[in-house]
Order: sequence, then structure tokens, then C-alpha cells
Amino acid sequence: MHMNTRRKTRTVHVGRVPLGGAHPVSVQSMTNTDTRDARATLGQIAELAAAGCDIVRVAVPDETAAAALKLIVAESPLPVVADIHFDHRLALAALDAGAAKLRLNPGNIGARNCVEAVAHAARERRVPIRVGVNAGSLERDLLARVEQDEIPLGAAMAESALHEAAILERCGFEDIVVSVKASNIRATIKAYHALAARCDYPLHVGITEAGTLINGVIKSAAGIAILLAEGIGDTIRVSLTSPPVEEARVGRKLLQALEMRPYGPEIISCPTCGRTEVDVIAIAQELERRIADDEELRRAACTIAVMGCVVNGPGEARHADVGFAGGRGEGIIFSKGAKIGKVSAQDAVDRLIEEVRKLGRKAE
Amino acid sequence: MHMNTRRKTRTVHVGRVPLGGAHPVSVQSMTNTDTRDARATLGQIAELAAAGCDIVRVAVPDETAAAALKLIVAESPLPVVADIHFDHRLALAALDAGAAKLRLNPGNIGARNCVEAVAHAARERRVPIRVGVNAGSLERDLLARVEQDEIPLGAAMAESALHEAAILERCGFEDIVVSVKASNIRATIKAYHALAARCDYPLHVGITEAGTLINGVIKSAAGIAILLAEGIGDTIRVSLTSPPVEEARVGRKLLQALEMRPYGPEIISCPTCGRTEVDVIAIAQELERRIADDEELRRAACTIAVMGCVVNGPGEARHADVGFAGGRGEGIIFSKGAKIGKVSAQDAVDRLIEEVRKLGRKAE
Repeated sequence: MHMNTRRKTRTVHVGRVPLGGAHPVSVQSMTNTDTRDARATLGQIAELAAAGCDIVRVAVPDETAAAALKLIVAESPLPVVADIHFDHRLALAALDAGAAKLRLNPGNIGARNCVEAVAHAARERRVPIRVGVNAGSLERDLLARVEQDEIPLGAAMAESALHEAAILERCGFEDIVVSVKASNIRATIKAYHALAARCDYPLHVGITEAGTLINGVIKSAAGIAILLAEGIGDTIRVSLTSPPVEEARVGRKLLQALEMRPYGPEIISCPTCGRTEVDVIAIAQELERRIADDEELRRAACTIAVMGCVVNGPGEARHADVGFAGGRGEGIIFSKGAKIGKVSAQDAVDRLIEEVRKLGRKAE
Repeated sequence: MHMNTRRKTRTVHVGRVPLGGAHPVSVQSMTNTDTRDARATLGQIAELAAAGCDIVRVAVPDETAAAALKLIVAESPLPVVADIHFDHRLALAALDAGAAKLRLNPGNIGARNCVEAVAHAARERRVPIRVGVNAGSLERDLLARVEQDEIPLGAAMAESALHEAAILERCGFEDIVVSVKASNIRATIKAYHALAARCDYPLHVGITEAGTLINGVIKSAAGIAILLAEGIGDTIRVSLTSPPVEEARVGRKLLQALEMRPYGPEIISCPTCGRTEVDVIAIAQELERRIADDEELRRAACTIAVMGCVVNGPGEARHADVGFAGGRGEGIIFSKGAKIGKVSAQDAVDRLIEEVRKLGRKAE
């Protein structure tokens, strides 16, 4: 795990959020509301912002959506990225609407003069552009070479993405972010390796079409973690076939788990076994629910241990900021390593929360 | 991702399941029933086996549990590991009961002659022993050195685990598996690095006390994937504060995602966006449910794509063995790259399953 040697990149600015360089890895998601419905889209953006999302993308499939984008940008608490396909006029309209970034491939939006117009308008507004290739949308000639084993899929994806970047470079535009996603972890990782070796643009990383909640979390956490551990990745998106707010939560939790960014209290809870004499699953779940519902608790940067037996329990509970080590229907409460009292299982959550609040007040 | 350079280890045998060498990485879990209740424990083991678990561990906290272990071992479809603390007589009883492996630390079960008795009995039966240290149960003197910054936590954990292994080695016992788990990913990874550099025993890897379902999956998938990508890990356990069957499913899905072992159909589904005109979340979830409920489908080794738009949809759907690319309330069905028909959104799941079955029959 080489987290101290993060890959060196340029920095681009997505509104107030810097990407690349030594800036924190940011978390992105994408709304799945109809963008033309600005209210619904803003509602989802508010949810994403509350869950710790840094940057939000919205699809802009037509002019009505581009018009709605103006309202969305005006009220969004997060910088808004416009996702554009097929038509450069939508990109120009999105820039007029105040988009903080464009997501498009120049090869996909029209002829050379169209691309020049977009690059010029984006440069004037200091708006970066993400280019990117998904395994499912690889150019036909590269795909043929992959299928004939002339070039590995990962290298072909990097080649294709850099080809898109080169079109912008020829227009004098270099505020570029790049992505190369596949639904397959190995192909994705190889594509990012190839990309990282060949450019110094900030990289947007993720596993695409990763699946429904649990399966998508498995694939995304595994693939993104392997890349981040190698120092690759400046902004991440967890793609889930699930409400977007889950993508933001999972992304933030992943960065927290890798100690790259804090994200509220971390609950350390044991898997339970035949030795467990207290309902650890219920206590840990109740604790999570209470934290999720409470703004003050959500912001507390601490570890809370919920342990069910005397084997590893007291050790873990003592190491956490606040801990509960359960025995038969009751347990011991620890705070900052010291035993501070006994508590019944049913009062454990209340007592843990009380201690978390006390620590928070001391820290102020 | 260096999956081709798996770390070289000895092989030990847990019943019929070999660990280490070039053998497939196996998936473990632990029952959380009262081991003294053999029926309940066997019920949970049957669930674990159906979910693809390879090896199951049960806590053996007392003599009644050791007696129940005999019944459990006799009927268990999986090799059973006995988890022993404090008392070497329980280890001897577990060996008598037919345990396929012991999980214990010799420093924790009694004096030298007690350890010798266990090592001797285990060697006679060719039963391996896993020794392991959790961050929460580190020896007092090493813990003091960690707290005074004299030694990093990871190195201390490896040191402690190898100290336990050395006690067995001095008894002439070398059928050893080692683990060094923390609830912290970085510490866990550093501990396994230290361990991998200093021994050739097969390694049991996992992140301990990883938390409730989603958070636990994030931490476990990230930590275990980083290690496996480095070639470290011969058997894995995903620790979740959740029913054990989830641990087995997540473990198997993780190995599948890393292309280390197949585990039924892989569903590739898009995250949906403002462009989606068909309920991808509902279709993907329904497809997963139908597969989970059907033995034949659960065993099908294929990819199924469920995509919601015309941008990446047809590309991904064409690459998958079977695919659906949705438009407005309907979509196109692909099989092995060829369009084979249109289908309404409500018939999509039936049609996808029909095509999966056809492919299965062709493969036979």
C-alpha cells in the first residue's frame, strides 16, 4: 500500500473543488432524475451534498435539460458537471448555464469547428472537460484490434481516451480530466496503469456498471482501493444500480477506510460468533441509525467499538475512542482507553452516544 | 495488479480443502449460533455451504460445545475449524471430535506441556493449526512498544503471530496457517507485508471487526483486494456484523470480481442517470432475486448486462453473454453479441433468464 507516493498530476478546478495535485481525492455521483425537472434534480443534489458528495454530474440530453441546468447550477450546493453526447450545442448551452465542468468526448460531439467552439468557450470560462472511454463504447477500429488480440483491452481504452484528449490539446485546451472504466476490475486497472504512464492529467477512477448495491460495492471498493493504494486516482465515482446517495456514502466511507479523508464516526463491530452473549448486530445497527439521523454525531471524528465477547472485545474497545465490550446481557463502557462503567445491553447505544458527545465537547 | 505472481507458500490441508501453494483462494466464515446447539449450528453451516463457503469455523468455548462438535463434524458438508481459547483440553477434545483445523494461539492455551500435547495430537491427525493476532489482542509488552512508537503496529502484529508459530515449531509442528488482522486497513496491510516477508506459511487474510453489512463490505473488499492484488492471501474471511451467510456470499463475489474464482452469473448493470428511460434498478434486482432462488441459474457461469440507455448500453450488452439495452419502456435483447429481439421492460427478466438457460444447455 503506497499511499504516500500519490501520482503527480496537474490541478484543474471544478468550481471551488480542485482535482489533482496534492488535493484531497474527491467524491462524485450523478443524478438519475430527469434533468428537465430542475426541482427533482435539486432535491437529489441536496441529498448528495448532505451525504458528503463533492461534485455532481447531470445528464444534458436536450435543450430543455440545458435550460433547466441554469436553474440547477444557480441553486446547487455542489459544482455541477454537464454530461453531453452527440451535440456540441448542448455543451455550449451547458457552459452558458454555468456548468463547472463538462463530461464529453470531442470525437462524439461533431466536426472540428464544433469542438473548437466548445474548447474555446470552456477555456474562456476556465471550465475543465473530462474525456473518458468505457469498455462498452470503445471505437470500432480499436475494438476490432482488441478482438483480434492485437492490443489488450486496457491499453486500447487508454489509447482511445488519450486520442480524445489529443483532439482538445490540438485546440489549445489542456484543463483535462481522464477516465477509462470497464465493468471488469482487471481491465479497468490495466487501463488506468496505461493512462497513468502516459499523461499527467488528473484521473477520475471507478468501475462502471458495477451492479446493484452489495455487488456494486464489492467491485467498486476492490477496484478503486487497488488503484488508490497505488497512488492512482484524483476523484472517484462509485457506480451503483441504486439511488445515487448510496454512491456518495460508499465513496466517502471508502476514502475514510483508506484513511484518505474523514467521514464521521467509524464503527468497529465484531462479526459475532458462538461466544457472543449480547446482540451485537442490533446494537451496531441501532448506533448507525442514530448517527445517521443526527447532524452533530455525523460530524464526530471518532472510532466507536461494539464488541460481543471477552476475547477481542476489551482490547478493541479500549483502543477505540469509545467502546462497549459485551458479556451476558450487559457490558463495559470504555472511553479513551479507560473503563468508565457497566451498562445493560439495552442502554449500550445511549451510553455510547453520550460518551461520543462528551468527547466532542472536550475537543471544542 | 500483480495477480499472476501469487506469493509462494507451503500447502496445508483443511479436510479436503487445500490451503496455499497454487490452490484456489478459499472462503471461510464462522457460525454465530451457540455451538452447543448442534442442530442450529448445522443449519447455519448448510446455508454457508449453499452460498459457496469452503471452510467453516465454530467457537468451542466449553466441554459441552466440544461434545456437540462431534455431531456437527459428522454431518457438516464443510470442513469444520474449532476456535479455542484459554484451555488446551478443549483443543484435544476438538481433535477427538474430528475438527479439520484448530484456531488457537499456543501462548493462550496453557503451559509448554499442554501445547506439546495439542501439537502432538494435531500432527498425528494431520490437522493444521491457525495462529493469529488481532490488533485488539496484541501481547502487553509489544503493545507498550507500539504505544511508545518503538515499533509500528503492523510489524508488532507480525512479530507476535510469528512468536506464536515459533512455539508450535519448537514442538516440531509446522502445519501452520497465520493471520494478522486489524480493523484498520493500513495496519492490516502492513502486518501482512511484514508476515509475508518473514515466513512461507499460507496466510488467512481479512479485516477484522469491519462493521455492519455495507461498511463492512467496503472495508473488507478494499483491504482484501489490495492484498490479493499483491499476491498475498491463500484463504479469506470477510468479517461482517451481519448473518454469516453474507460473509460467504461477499467473499465469493469478491473472488469472482477479481477473476480468481467463478461464482455464478455476473450482472453488469448501469448506475442509471437522467438519460435512463427504463427501470434498470428494478430489472437488475429482480434478476438477482430470480438467480438466487434457482439452483441451475446460480451455477451458470456467464455475464448478464442490464443497461438503461443508448450511450453505453448496446456496447456493454453486446459484450456480455446475454444483455438487455433499454430504451423507452422496452429494449433490445442480445445473446453472444448478436441482437436477437425486442422485449418490453416488464418481460426483460424472463427473456434474459430464458437466454441464460439456452446458453447453459448449449454448453452442456
